[in-house]
Amino acid sequence: MDLSKKIREIEDFPKPGIGFKDITTLLKDGEAFKYTVDCISENLRRHNVDIIVGPEARGFILGTPVAYNLGVGFVPIRKPGKLPGKVESYEYSLEYGTDVLEIHEDAITKGMRVAIVDDLLATGGTVAAATKLIEKLGGEVVSIEFLIELDFLDGRKKLDGYNVNTLVHYSEE
Amino acid sequence: MDLSKKIREIEDFPKPGIGFKDITTLLKDGEAFKYTVDCISENLRRHNVDIIVGPEARGFILGTPVAYNLGVGFVPIRKPGKLPGKVESYEYSLEYGTDVLEIHEDAITKGMRVAIVDDLLATGGTVAAATKLIEKLGGEVVSIEFLIELDFLDGRKKLDGYNVNTLVHYSEE
Repeated sequence: MDLSKKIREIEDFPKPGIGFKDITTLLKDGEAFKYTVDCISENLRRHNVDIIVGPEARGFILGTPVAYNLGVGFVPIRKPGKLPGKVESYEYSLEYGTDVLEIHEDAITKGMRVAIVDDLLATGGTVAAATKLIEKLGGEVVSIEFLIELDFLDGRKKLDGYNVNTLVHYSEE
Repeated sequence: MDLSKKIREIEDFPKPGIGFKDITTLLKDGEAFKYTVDCISENLRRHNVDIIVGPEARGFILGTPVAYNLGVGFVPIRKPGKLPGKVESYEYSLEYGTDVLEIHEDAITKGMRVAIVDDLLATGGTVAAATKLIEKLGGEVVSIEFLIELDFLDGRKKLDGYNVNTLVHYSEE
């Protein structure tokens, strides 16, 4: 299935000049959604993953059905103040300013084989921060899976050394 | 499986006096997570659901694997400014002030059989707003599924007339 045909482009969102890749058209199509989850799950089977991690909020959308499909648990990474238990935090730089992500400190145990699933690899900042949080807790990031990658933003550079898979690539803006 | 044993209670979150039902302990347990998704899916099978709707952000966590399991699509309901396409909005009252939820106006078509999945039924405001959005677009809400219900908050009253199922009930605060 050509998943790129299921993704809608919205001009000038969230700001003028940006063409937003809207996956809601793929998600509402039961067949395309199932195919996406199955492809990511297949990529992960050979890694003997113990747990899936997904960053808030769109990382929840693909991460949880992949976890269900593989029969493993799911761990959310969230913005500050959302997780109720004791957390590890990681602050990272954005184009302007900084952002913080949190994970429950008991979510990952030492030696766990962890896969990160998210919808989009853009600049890579969020997922690079997720790798730091997982590794702080002693987990090993065995694979990182995206639905979409914006090749022209070079986010893969920030994930150097990791096994990164993407289903749909956009080579130009 | 007694799912209530997989849910952790965190005292005084998000404010003093509140005991927060933390489902992250259930989510990270692959067996408990799978069992939860399978139970909700079983409740829905007889309804011949066309699509699952889940409100941001924790509604994404259970809604998407249920959609995957049933082989149907998933539609997110989000806070303002998050959905890139044309939206329907609905404003609803909170204890103090109001909140707004949005859905893509092309997400649901007339006559679609829709199930709403969310983690928690508390006062019911969010999901009542979700039913309004779905019905504005011509969808029929055939079932509403929760993991947890706080019976003492009487949220079910706001969902009068709907088929509501919950896996784990808390009868007192």
